[in-house]
Amino acid sequence: MSLPHAHSGDVITLKALGAGLPQAISTAIVRTPHLELIRSVLHKGRTVPEHKVEGDLTIQCIEGKLAVQAHGMTTMLLPGELLFLAGGVSHSIAADEDSSALLTLVRVTAK
Amino acid sequence: MSLPHAHSGDVITLKALGAGLPQAISTAIVRTPHLELIRSVLHKGRTVPEHKVEGDLTIQCIEGKLAVQAHGMTTMLLPGELLFLAGGVSHSIAADEDSSALLTLVRVTAK
Repeated sequence: MSLPHAHSGDVITLKALGAGLPQAISTAIVRTPHLELIRSVLHKGRTVPEHKVEGDLTIQCIEGKLAVQAHGMTTMLLPGELLFLAGGVSHSIAADEDSSALLTLVRVTAK
Repeated sequence: MSLPHAHSGDVITLKALGAGLPQAISTAIVRTPHLELIRSVLHKGRTVPEHKVEGDLTIQCIEGKLAVQAHGMTTMLLPGELLFLAGGVSHSIAADEDSSALLTLVRVTAK
């Protein structure tokens, strides 16, 4: 399932994948020199190990339940909730349930 | 209703305002040197006149119905839909119904 990135003016649906979630995979939605949008699918029990990115980011839970570790605490993210993380902040993500989320990342160009 | 901007690690709810929407106003959620998030409230019949911003942006409809004019066409945005617009693209927004949306803007620093 290799989809082309969206172009300016394109509409992207963020609706829950629902019954299709167990078979779904993460997909890149938008990628420009300054902005990246990813529909991230994380199945129950899977984790994104601790890492950091240079730019500011948001994690918006669309469905499921995500546990985000950052700033020395664990934050549970439910559908309709968005977590803001500043660039350079180490974080990890664990899926308590089959989950999908919109990741929005500011791409910081090389200094 | 002047709320402080969110800090890294804060959770923001994007749930529909529902019965509170007619009295709601737009609020800034996050503002960093690189990223700006705004919960934009646009009541039925109101418009944001044609304008452009330097950085890439997304408009995510949370509730209501928004008509976005850009690239010479009108795009209807319903809840759960997100429109991507590249930086520098002129656009206007009209509310067909009382609406709220998450605006995500990449802030481009001065060259």
